[in-house]
Amino acid sequence: MRKYVSEFLGTFLLVFIGTSSVVIARGSVLTIALAFGLAVTISAYAFGGISGGHFNPAVTTAMWLNKRIGLADAIGYIVSQIIAACLASWLVQLFAKGLGQAANQLGQTDFPKISVGLAFTVETLATFLFLTIILNVTSKEHGNSDFAGLIIGLALALMIVFSLNLTGGSLNPARSIGPALFAGGSALSHLWLYVVAPEVGAIIAAYVSKFLLQSED
Amino acid sequence: MRKYVSEFLGTFLLVFIGTSSVVIARGSVLTIALAFGLAVTISAYAFGGISGGHFNPAVTTAMWLNKRIGLADAIGYIVSQIIAACLASWLVQLFAKGLGQAANQLGQTDFPKISVGLAFTVETLATFLFLTIILNVTSKEHGNSDFAGLIIGLALALMIVFSLNLTGGSLNPARSIGPALFAGGSALSHLWLYVVAPEVGAIIAAYVSKFLLQSED
Amino acid sequence: MRKYVSEFLGTFLLVFIGTSSVVIARGSVLTIALAFGLAVTISAYAFGGISGGHFNPAVTTAMWLNKRIGLADAIGYIVSQIIAACLASWLVQLFAKGLGQAANQLGQTDFPKISVGLAFTVETLATFLFLTIILNVTSKEHGNSDFAGLIIGLALALMIVFSLNLTGGSLNPARSIGPALFAGGSALSHLWLYVVAPEVGAIIAAYVSKFLLQSED
Amino acid sequence: MRKYVSEFLGTFLLVFIGTSSVVIARGSVLTIALAFGLAVTISAYAFGGISGGHFNPAVTTAMWLNKRIGLADAIGYIVSQIIAACLASWLVQLFAKGLGQAANQLGQTDFPKISVGLAFTVETLATFLFLTIILNVTSKEHGNSDFAGLIIGLALALMIVFSLNLTGGSLNPARSIGPALFAGGSALSHLWLYVVAPEVGAIIAAYVSKFLLQSED
Repeated sequence: MRKYVSEFLGTFLLVFIGTSSVVIARGSVLTIALAFGLAVTISAYAFGGISGGHFNPAVTTAMWLNKRIGLADAIGYIVSQIIAACLASWLVQLFAKGLGQAANQLGQTDFPKISVGLAFTVETLATFLFLTIILNVTSKEHGNSDFAGLIIGLALALMIVFSLNLTGGSLNPARSIGPALFAGGSALSHLWLYVVAPEVGAIIAAYVSKFLLQSED
Repeated sequence: MRKYVSEFLGTFLLVFIGTSSVVIARGSVLTIALAFGLAVTISAYAFGGISGGHFNPAVTTAMWLNKRIGLADAIGYIVSQIIAACLASWLVQLFAKGLGQAANQLGQTDFPKISVGLAFTVETLATFLFLTIILNVTSKEHGNSDFAGLIIGLALALMIVFSLNLTGGSLNPARSIGPALFAGGSALSHLWLYVVAPEVGAIIAAYVSKFLLQSED
Repeated sequence: MRKYVSEFLGTFLLVFIGTSSVVIARGSVLTIALAFGLAVTISAYAFGGISGGHFNPAVTTAMWLNKRIGLADAIGYIVSQIIAACLASWLVQLFAKGLGQAANQLGQTDFPKISVGLAFTVETLATFLFLTIILNVTSKEHGNSDFAGLIIGLALALMIVFSLNLTGGSLNPARSIGPALFAGGSALSHLWLYVVAPEVGAIIAAYVSKFLLQSED
Repeated sequence: MRKYVSEFLGTFLLVFIGTSSVVIARGSVLTIALAFGLAVTISAYAFGGISGGHFNPAVTTAMWLNKRIGLADAIGYIVSQIIAACLASWLVQLFAKGLGQAANQLGQTDFPKISVGLAFTVETLATFLFLTIILNVTSKEHGNSDFAGLIIGLALALMIVFSLNLTGGSLNPARSIGPALFAGGSALSHLWLYVVAPEVGAIIAAYVSKFLLQSED
């Protein structure tokens, strides 16, 4: 039970702080990227010791494929993550309304400037790179457990610097589901892409990392 | 005695650097958030070994509820923190006047755009999340004592990214008392909220963390 | 083989994230500097345990001169780095085109405002300082292996803060080759400088560090 | 000899990167503060193991008062620091001229908006706080040697956030001497303040820290 509460709290922080940096703080690219990334970092150090610190269904999928987590726990993690993301978006909407802002501007992810094929490529590639870093920096053989939470958060921030102007920089189905459910419109009709593409990227990363993390040289 | 001097110095740095980033540097959201947050980080590594590094009456309250500090010390800490915050605001006022700036712009906290109920919710929620991270990252079972000071500072910075445009982002009664006493006006008449809401958030966090930090799975 | 894949992935991240921060995110000086620098940091912690984490032909040259890597491996590393940089620039061009941007704006390095002699001096000096820091922070005698990846990334970021407005801040032949091949024009005709000057800086650093790292006092 | 070369390189990086962020990068307050601060951080991890990582005559003075360094070495350190700062400013002037910029804009420190008394107070207070953090975070009893270089750099960055608009944020006689000698004018006639005030702040910090660092409670 404590594991699911940990995943809930970490995913809540990721979506709540990250989308608030867009909607309420109206921050720069760097501010938004660091808000999402460092929210993962602080959650990893605070709750990672309990649950492993996934906070993202695509991460949980890759961890399940690499046999670091069982199927029942993986499903529980993903359910917790999605519920947390929805609560976060409901609260961001509440606070944005309090400021007199539009109720459908919740930091949702979309790709108004590029084609669906390119958007799929961006989310798949960014999640593949993100997961490759996670799987390597948390590996027992050559990773660094003390710094892993910092590196993973910075990696997410850098992927958002790259992808923010293309797809909004999700890499995380839960992070897209929460805001899309409350914002509706194009973000909701494009939601399938933000569920499928990160999962595809995560699956590729899981198999590539099996090669990188094996022992022969 | 050294403990109270440590709390005095850390709280002084938090209020002095943080409110200077607003009043004197006129920084961006990211600059202000990092100024408050990293002031806690540097104080935690410099003085945390002496006093535990609270620098915030709400933190001291939660630590007292979780029996990490006695009542007499808790009162001494809070008195030191409030005196330090007042000295910091007096100095910021001195320097701002030297620049020819308005004497009532001291980085005080207020909520001109939202209702009192929403403001109370923001400060309570932000402080609850902040304390939950503090209590977990400093726990003996699954925390990380080497990184705790960095994570706590980044957590404060992220909470300020979220709350700056709503309530000014206090999470700390001492941080609001200092500037309000010298700025007066609405910040002073709303001061009760910045004393009560963070304490409520801290008390909830103290009880929730007892659940998260227990050993059963 | 895993070593070359590691150098490929790290150099890809450096060029891809770094030049995306210019072309796609259109970031501030700080954003661009941190994008390049922290891309090195995350790659160092994720892949440095496999390959040593060079991600830069000039770094590989200095490591070869200081006998930390053999000649055959050094050549393999440099080939991997250059291929990775070209793939990264091809992808950045693809995404920039998708946004409707000019196909020859790929974050390439050039020196439109200063003389060729000054540009050579800037790249040589910046790479010399960068390599001196790398060789010292990774030394067994007085370095710090846990923090080395963070320090090396921050050092690159700071060198870019200094040199961005002068030469584009390369310090890395691979980082300049990739964008120049796709952008063409002046960046391609000036490419020799971004190959030669960083190598000269790295060679000087290799010899100076032999003095700094010896044991006598 | 290696100790003096280390102090030379670290102080060169501090002045060269820091003042370049003002003159060449024309960065924001956050960019300038991080450029100075993180230059100290990278130098501390790269060269601190050789010389102790002072890079500042005021730091050397406090370390001498607290008997962490002998008088002969202290003098050698300060001479190295001042020569390094002058070389850095000469190079910044060379590069700024190459960009066609004014030869007397070198990131020199001055206080055009405030009185000399207030400026003296700002530099003394900021250096006192900076040195108090240095002496505590490097103490054997309750400091943290792994994080000390990071904390000291962040502390300098935060002090510059506070003082940049007041005095230019020196806290370091060498950092002010280099640019003032080449820029001349008001920066040169006010140079005495940037030599005396930081030294006064350092001396006060050295004595206050003797109290904080003693063992009784």
